[in-house]
Amino acid sequence: MALKLTAADLPDLARGAAFLGTGGGGNPYIGRLMVERAMIETGRDLDLLDLADVPDDALVIPTAMMGAPTCIVEKLPEGREAAASLQRLERHLGRRAFATMPIEAGGVNSMIPLVVGLRLGLPVVDADGMGRAFPELFHETFHVYGVPGTPMVITNDHGDQTLVETHDNYVMEWLARGITIRMGGVAYIAEYPMDGATAKRTAIPGTLGVGLTIGRAIREARERHHDPFDRLITTLATTAYSPAKTIFAGKIVEVFRRTSEGFAKGTIRIQELGGDAGGDPETLEIEFQNENLIARLGERVLAVVPDLICVLDAETAEPITTEELRYGQRVKVLAVSVPPIMRTPAALAVWGPRHFGFDLDFVPMDEATAQKREIAL
Amino acid sequence: MALKLTAADLPDLARGAAFLGTGGGGNPYIGRLMVERAMIETGRDLDLLDLADVPDDALVIPTAMMGAPTCIVEKLPEGREAAASLQRLERHLGRRAFATMPIEAGGVNSMIPLVVGLRLGLPVVDADGMGRAFPELFHETFHVYGVPGTPMVITNDHGDQTLVETHDNYVMEWLARGITIRMGGVAYIAEYPMDGATAKRTAIPGTLGVGLTIGRAIREARERHHDPFDRLITTLATTAYSPAKTIFAGKIVEVFRRTSEGFAKGTIRIQELGGDAGGDPETLEIEFQNENLIARLGERVLAVVPDLICVLDAETAEPITTEELRYGQRVKVLAVSVPPIMRTPAALAVWGPRHFGFDLDFVPMDEATAQKREIAL
Repeated sequence: MALKLTAADLPDLARGAAFLGTGGGGNPYIGRLMVERAMIETGRDLDLLDLADVPDDALVIPTAMMGAPTCIVEKLPEGREAAASLQRLERHLGRRAFATMPIEAGGVNSMIPLVVGLRLGLPVVDADGMGRAFPELFHETFHVYGVPGTPMVITNDHGDQTLVETHDNYVMEWLARGITIRMGGVAYIAEYPMDGATAKRTAIPGTLGVGLTIGRAIREARERHHDPFDRLITTLATTAYSPAKTIFAGKIVEVFRRTSEGFAKGTIRIQELGGDAGGDPETLEIEFQNENLIARLGERVLAVVPDLICVLDAETAEPITTEELRYGQRVKVLAVSVPPIMRTPAALAVWGPRHFGFDLDFVPMDEATAQKREIAL
Repeated sequence: MALKLTAADLPDLARGAAFLGTGGGGNPYIGRLMVERAMIETGRDLDLLDLADVPDDALVIPTAMMGAPTCIVEKLPEGREAAASLQRLERHLGRRAFATMPIEAGGVNSMIPLVVGLRLGLPVVDADGMGRAFPELFHETFHVYGVPGTPMVITNDHGDQTLVETHDNYVMEWLARGITIRMGGVAYIAEYPMDGATAKRTAIPGTLGVGLTIGRAIREARERHHDPFDRLITTLATTAYSPAKTIFAGKIVEVFRRTSEGFAKGTIRIQELGGDAGGDPETLEIEFQNENLIARLGERVLAVVPDLICVLDAETAEPITTEELRYGQRVKVLAVSVPPIMRTPAALAVWGPRHFGFDLDFVPMDEATAQKREIAL
């Protein structure tokens, strides 16, 4: 069943996509504005296409923003860059795309394909290649399951373009990252061109729909004065992102952030408010590289990639992306289990904790938090 | 009159090209070996084509190595990379090249187009776009006189390729440099594709022939036990590279070298041997960025870009490229006036001293050295 989106759905979709973005994937406000502008300028409808409905021989070209989320909020996209990348890739392949598709879920990166679809009159496949956001271009199920990432195209806000062809997807990421850095830290890409059969084999289906469901659940809970966290967790239980659990609540007492090697990297510390009577308040530490990677209470890991670590406003459950983290914010942290396709040995070999430099194997959040005392909500 | 080269000419050509490379343009030994190998493998002749003989509507695609000379001696080319760049650009343009051409004079960069010509069966235009070597891709007469540098292609030793299209030649250099750095500091390019009429309007003619003449003069002087420096200066007087003058002789007493931002940068100090009786020996300081940029005696500038500053072995007059400079080498330094096309206001705006961060206007070497006492040869 294909999903039909209206302008009224966009805030919910951007919010839910930012939730799945687990700190990364771009700022949902920017993402939403880009789609709204494209809707107004083109007068077109937003047509989503079920992954199952893509013809086997149709050409699908995923599109996205690439770079440090800290840069995108300083250097707003013009809105045509990703479409220009897709069109450049079409010219290179000598073939028109049948559809575009997100490469990851995120406040900007779930929305970019919608902008591309509107501007070029293409449907958008309701699926993506990460099921969340990840920092690098080989962190994609497409890569995990054997799809070449190149030829790919990178376009910046001045219309400068590079077409990259590499012998593997790691070199693609390495060169594309260098180009993105020199383009000012953010650029717009079309990559992993594939046929419909490959998309059906390798993409994670339905993630735009899941994002919309999540974003809508948060909004409706607020409107009805229900607890948005309760509603969020029960809503997630109806999706493949389950179980989910609030693992911490407190105030951000430290944000260390740097833009390094083209990524927004850093650490935050969240301190329990009140805490045990007489005891020192506990402090949760989260490390991020564009996305939140690991949440630790002292030595104890509460959640780690690829499971989602979502930092949300403690009152409204609005997702807070890593570039928006600030001292003093009252937040709750949710750990969310990802779908099984993202936890296979092949997938963990690409985006498990060791890939990010942590000396530990993946521990599913449901096991990691099993002995944790209940957090006072 | 087209020049015909034999294998026996290659050492002379590489030596003379390295002289014009003014410290950069790559190691002549590597350059010569690449051509010899291509001659053996293809069994083809080396056909040079006079610039004047290129048809106006013929497609000329210049080819070169790009990167830090310090990297090329550690990471020898396979020999097909530049040809792969040219062929990729042909596919992009949908048109076969009529000929290739050097972008600069240098021990490797005068030779790469010969390798490409041999491997692809193309003639090589006896001309180039710098008349010497310069560090950056917009330091070309092609750029000075309005030719777009892109589409350009960059290939590395693994066959990874990027096709770059930018809105100006400065962004081309900036992106291409970043890509080259990530390709390991050295890569192989095809750029400034142009028609024959444009080549005739913007290229510096005859520089391969001049290189051969210079290299041959040095060798013949040695064989006949003549002073190679005398012979060199009288030979240069028959070319557009005149006047030339020995501005210093001494021993290298300090080499400071770093590979930074994709370039080999540094400073050397050369101390006079003997010197004035009773006085302190004078010390010449040369700063380089791939190429020698400025030669100073204390505050006094003896030569500066775009004039050539050539560091030669004091006995044999063999050119020493910047990556081969070593403590203890006995050297003589020649300053050489470049052809008028390289000293126009438009050219000096691109590669005059201020572009390289020196707070001074260009002073022709003939004026700069007019009051200098004669060096004891």
